[in-house]
Parts: sequence; structure tokens; C-alpha cells
Amino acid sequence: MQGCIAVLNAGSSSIKFAIYDAGADAPARFRGQIQSIGLKPELLVRDRDGNEVLRGSWPADGFDHDAATQEILQAGQTLLRHEPVLAVGHRVVHGGLDHAAPVRVDPALIASLAKLAPLAPLHQPHNLAPIRTIAAQVPDLPQVACFDTAFHRCQAPVVQSFGLPRRFHDEGVRRYGFHGISYEYITSRLPDVAPAIARGRLVIGHLGNGASLCAVQDGRSVASTMGFTAVDGLLMGTRCGALDPGVLLYLMDTHGMDARAIEDLIYRRSGLLGVSGISPDMRSLRASAAPEAAEAIALFVHRIVREIGSMAAALGGIDALVFTGGIGENDAATRAEVARGCAWLGLTLDPERNAAGGGCISAEGSRVAAWVVATDEERMIARHTAALLGLAAGTERQQQEE
Amino acid sequence: MQGCIAVLNAGSSSIKFAIYDAGADAPARFRGQIQSIGLKPELLVRDRDGNEVLRGSWPADGFDHDAATQEILQAGQTLLRHEPVLAVGHRVVHGGLDHAAPVRVDPALIASLAKLAPLAPLHQPHNLAPIRTIAAQVPDLPQVACFDTAFHRCQAPVVQSFGLPRRFHDEGVRRYGFHGISYEYITSRLPDVAPAIARGRLVIGHLGNGASLCAVQDGRSVASTMGFTAVDGLLMGTRCGALDPGVLLYLMDTHGMDARAIEDLIYRRSGLLGVSGISPDMRSLRASAAPEAAEAIALFVHRIVREIGSMAAALGGIDALVFTGGIGENDAATRAEVARGCAWLGLTLDPERNAAGGGCISAEGSRVAAWVVATDEERMIARHTAALLGLAAGTERQQQEE
Repeated sequence: MQGCIAVLNAGSSSIKFAIYDAGADAPARFRGQIQSIGLKPELLVRDRDGNEVLRGSWPADGFDHDAATQEILQAGQTLLRHEPVLAVGHRVVHGGLDHAAPVRVDPALIASLAKLAPLAPLHQPHNLAPIRTIAAQVPDLPQVACFDTAFHRCQAPVVQSFGLPRRFHDEGVRRYGFHGISYEYITSRLPDVAPAIARGRLVIGHLGNGASLCAVQDGRSVASTMGFTAVDGLLMGTRCGALDPGVLLYLMDTHGMDARAIEDLIYRRSGLLGVSGISPDMRSLRASAAPEAAEAIALFVHRIVREIGSMAAALGGIDALVFTGGIGENDAATRAEVARGCAWLGLTLDPERNAAGGGCISAEGSRVAAWVVATDEERMIARHTAALLGLAAGTERQQQEE
Repeated sequence: MQGCIAVLNAGSSSIKFAIYDAGADAPARFRGQIQSIGLKPELLVRDRDGNEVLRGSWPADGFDHDAATQEILQAGQTLLRHEPVLAVGHRVVHGGLDHAAPVRVDPALIASLAKLAPLAPLHQPHNLAPIRTIAAQVPDLPQVACFDTAFHRCQAPVVQSFGLPRRFHDEGVRRYGFHGISYEYITSRLPDVAPAIARGRLVIGHLGNGASLCAVQDGRSVASTMGFTAVDGLLMGTRCGALDPGVLLYLMDTHGMDARAIEDLIYRRSGLLGVSGISPDMRSLRASAAPEAAEAIALFVHRIVREIGSMAAALGGIDALVFTGGIGENDAATRAEVARGCAWLGLTLDPERNAAGGGCISAEGSRVAAWVVATDEERMIARHTAALLGLAAGTERQQQEE
């Protein structure tokens, strides 16, 4: 009975979680989430084979992130019986300027992370809620915070800078970049699954409901499309991506919109949903015959192709393109369309490999390689949590080498 | 006595003008401006050889754009004696969705252009002021409006789109692009000065106090870094360029800034000035030993290099890079630094040619060519004005061919 590591990923209306065997860098034993917090809270947990093992629901009233966290702790006890949870790892969107690596939670850390809430007001408070609950309920249970920004902190200063007066830079208005836990996981996998490209100049596309690109060289982040917030860069499910700041002035002046109205517009009503007027979900758009669906997809692809050019410039060239995330892993059509836009870089897909959708999907002789690699942010968090607390069994690679 | 064409370029605190011989597509006979309108209005006019030929000054009180325009009309009479001004061409920043070419001014046009003021509140009203004054004072004098946006209207719809809900697109929130008169002039010059690249895939960098890139193929605009407004894209003298829209929400929420404060920040206090804290002028920054000056220049260059990657992606490859504008034409160091960042595309400068600074500056065998071509927006406007009114003598090229 070696014990387990729990991983929590708390959003505005849901808390996802996964449970890993400590000391074995392996897929999660259980994955679950409580969704629709504030609306119609429901719990669903599945085991490694996808079988449903736990289900629950609660009245919405009074069921907040604190209550949800307690229910998840309870669910963990039910699922694990007498096996102990040794530590909890958390996804925290913002680590600010100080955190380029995961860090163990203590009261001072919680206070310092809370101060970053203005940098990520839609995410940071929710990320911190379960940390606070667990610290209060189970003060001896070690907790670790893993940051979506940390992987990008090695970027050159010029890459992280906006063109604003220095005082804003000094107070933290910088290009932080996000999805860093995903990029770190992909980067950690490449020496095993794609050793030929692992040390090269890579552009990794994390294309899901949120979407970004990361330029990686020698395993380190060189540039990323997301900036100060997770709304910048690519078109996303409901987020607009890059937007002329003059548009916001126009929305304020001509439409009388305030910060909350603009925030709602650019985070929740734009992107694939706003352009198509149909759905934020790529599967729905692919299934639609409406020209608006095709236009939304075309803009999604166009923005990726343009930003791959910018990422290649940051790298001084590109050796491989790696697709991950829900769309990147599952939508062969998007991969094909992006690749067509990257033909000028020397990328040619193998249609059959792309349709099959795993591993190398570029054609023999393609100057730029293309790969599909599944991401697993929770596993990366579990790995960091184990390593930081001395519970680690080594990475997948180390295990293979043993 | 064939008559002349006058060109006016009205900004917020200055009106520049030039006078051309009608029917001869040649450099301006006179160039002048009234500057410091509202502060300390001063007129200065020089002839083709750079000799000062007229000077004036007025008390600031009551001396507005209307008065300045009347003084310019008066100056024209003084300079030209009995030679008539046959037409006036104007630079108008915004032609909206309707105008993909210059157009003759009539009352309906003035009214329709005035309606575009919310799209360019800092420029459009000033551009229209002299048109109104001349229409009232000299109603029989033909006037022509040339638009900074017109050259870009042939871009594909996907290139002109933001990721916002369709209703904003439909009401005109699009990527218009600017500096179009300059890009059109450069494009018109290339068959003469650089026939080898004229039909290729070009990235033209108009690098001055305002700065943007334009991707051009077969003489037509394919993409541009400026978007809905002229604040987007590259770092500029005092403009921030591309900025995460989330930063504006942060400035509103955390600093309590309103639209006017943000406008002042991103248009007038950012860019080279804001990052360096020293000057918006590249010459001053090059002369400075301060590390902040070097940082501002590095960010200016970095943003150009990144956006060249994005432009090349829009073009599906790049055959040549063309520098123009005050910095592009005169700062060999900036050209060299940009070219170093584009080595991955196959661009190598010839250091001696670059130092000399005119014509082709790339090395023998460079896969991507690089050129310096001086722009002349006023001459392009004079040419359009003559052509639209049937006063044209043909382009420079046609003259050479005759």
C-alpha cells in the first residue's frame, strides 16, 4: 500500500481531479469532476478503463468550491478505502514573475498567489479555493502548486515585453504565456516517442477549447501566442484571440461597454462561437453545412498558420510541428488545413498517417516533421508533486531505461 | 502654363502640403507645412532643391485647421503667382469598407467619410477639415480623397477578420490596414527600380514614426500588421503595437483608467518612447548609451522579425523584403538587425550596400532579396488626383517607356 497522489484542476464552475499511484509515473487510476457548480452540481468518476465508479449530485444552493473540494476529498476516501492520499497537486494558472517551477504550498504562498488575482481574475481565485479548503481541513496533507506560466519564464526578456511604458512592465504587465503544464508534458514525452525531433526547433500547438502555440528549443519555451492573459493569440472556442487594442476603445466609445461587458464579449461570446454564431465546439462546426461554420474554421486555421510563421521567426527556423489538445489530437481536418498553410516551410503530411492520428503524421522526406502527441496535464502535475515531495519513481523515460 | 496639383495631408496639429506640376509625374515643386496648430502655428515651405521659399507664423488663438487651410491656399497663390491650382488631393486615413480606390469629393462623400470618424477618431476629423474648408471657399476646385485603407481592401476576408461575434464584423470592426498610399507608391515603383522582385512575394516595411508591414503579391496587398486602427501591429514611436486585450481590462480594473486615459497611453506614451523612457526618435535612441534605449530598439526589431514570419506565412513564402519610411530608408543598423532575424528565411545583407542605403542591399546569392526604396505618399496622391480628373501624364514608368 504505497499511497496515492491527487491532482485538482479547479475552474470557475467545475473542479476536475485525478488520482495517481504515488511512485509510479503511470496513467491515472481515477479521473473525475464535479461540474456545474452553482447551477446543478454533479460528480462523475471513472476508473482507468473508463468505467463509471462514482456518481453524485447536490442542490446548487450553498454548494461552492469549498463544498465541492470536501466532496472530492470524501470521494477519494471512498475510492481508495484505506489507501492514503500522500499529497495533492494543483493546477494554478498564474505563478507571476517569481515562479518558474512548481512549489510546495504554505500560508505565505497562498497569500502571494492571491495577490496575482488581478492578473487572472477569471481563474486564479477559483484555482486557490481548493488549496485553501484542504489547508484548513487537512493541514498536514502536503500540497503543491503547478503553474501554467512557469514553463515560459525562461523566454528572453524581449519576447515577454509589451510596448508599454516601463512602469507597467515593472509592475508585471508582461507576456506570461499559458498552457505551460501541457507544453512541459509534451516536451517531456518527446525523447521517448519522437527522439529525432526532441532537441530541435519545435512549434507545439495546444489546440483545445483554449488554444495556443509554443515555440520550444532544446526543451525550453522560446515564445508563446498567449500573452498577459489567456485571451490573446489564437482564435479559441469562445475567446477572440489577438485583438487590436483600438477595438476595445471603439467598444467603449461607440457601444458604451465597460470592462465587464468587454470581458464577457472577448472571453465567452467570441472565437469559434462568435464567428460562426453556431457553436464553440469544433465537432459541431465540422458537422455543420452553414457557411458561417466554415468561416469560423477558416479563421481558426488562418490564425494558427500566421502564428506558426511568427513562432518560426522566434526560433530562427522550424524542424517540427506537434499537435496536441482536444482538436489537435482528434481533428485530422484541422491538422491537414494547418499543414497546407505551412507547406511554404517544407511541411507535407502523409494523409493516411494523419487520418490514423497518432505519432508521426508527416510524409517521408518532409523537411518539417509533424507529430500528434496526446497531452496529460494532470499527470504532469502528479509527477511534479511526487518529485517535489520525494515520492517520485522517475519519469516514464527513466523507467524504460531501467 | 499647365497648372498645378496641390496635395494636403492634415494631422491633429499640422497640415503638410506639396505642389506638383499637373501632367508631369515628377517630384514636388514645393513642400511645406503649417505645424504646431493650437500651440505656435508656423509655416515653412521649401522648393525642389530644399531652399526655404516661404515662412510665416500666427498667434495660436483662433488659428484652427480652417485658418491653416486658408493660409495654405494663400501660400499657394503666392508661390505659383498666376499659375492655377487645378485640383487638390487629400490624404484621408479611413475609407471604410466602401472605398478601395481614390474618389472625387462631393458633399455626399464628405458626409459619408465623417460617419467613419468613430473608426479613426484621432485622424479622420482632422483629415476632413481642409476638405470642408476648400469646398466652402473654392467650391469649383476639384478635390480628391485618397485613403490609407484602400490598398488593403483586396485582402481575403479571413485576413480582415477578428475573432469577434459576426455583428461587430458586419458593423465594420475589421482589420483595415493603413499606410496604403505608401505601399501603393512603393509597389508602383518596383517595376522600374527592382523589376526582378516586382511580381514576387514581398514584405514591405514602412518603418517611420508610425510603422507597419504589408505582404504584397503581384502588386496587391495580402496582409498587413495594422488592424482596425493604426495602433496595432509593430512597435512605433509612441504607439504600443499589438497588445493583449486583457491588458486593457487590467488597466481599467486595477488602474481605473477610462478610454481616454488608455488612448493617451497606447497612442502617445508607449512604443519606443514608453519602453526607453528617453525618446520616440530612433536617431536619439541610437545615439544613447542607456540600456533602456537598447531595449526599446531590440523590441522594435524583434516585433518586426516576428511579424515578417507572419507575413511570410500569409504569402506562402517570401522573395524580397523592402524597407521604406524614415527609419527604413535611413537607419542601416535597424535594417541589419532585422535582416539578422530573417536569416532563417534565407536573407543575407551585403554590409556595404546596406551602409550605402539605396536600392538592392542583399548579398549576391541571398535567397531572399532586400531593397531600400524611398516612399512618397504625397506624390502618389498627386498621381491619383491627376488620373481621376483626367490631368494625368502617365506614371514614371510610362514616361520612361515613351
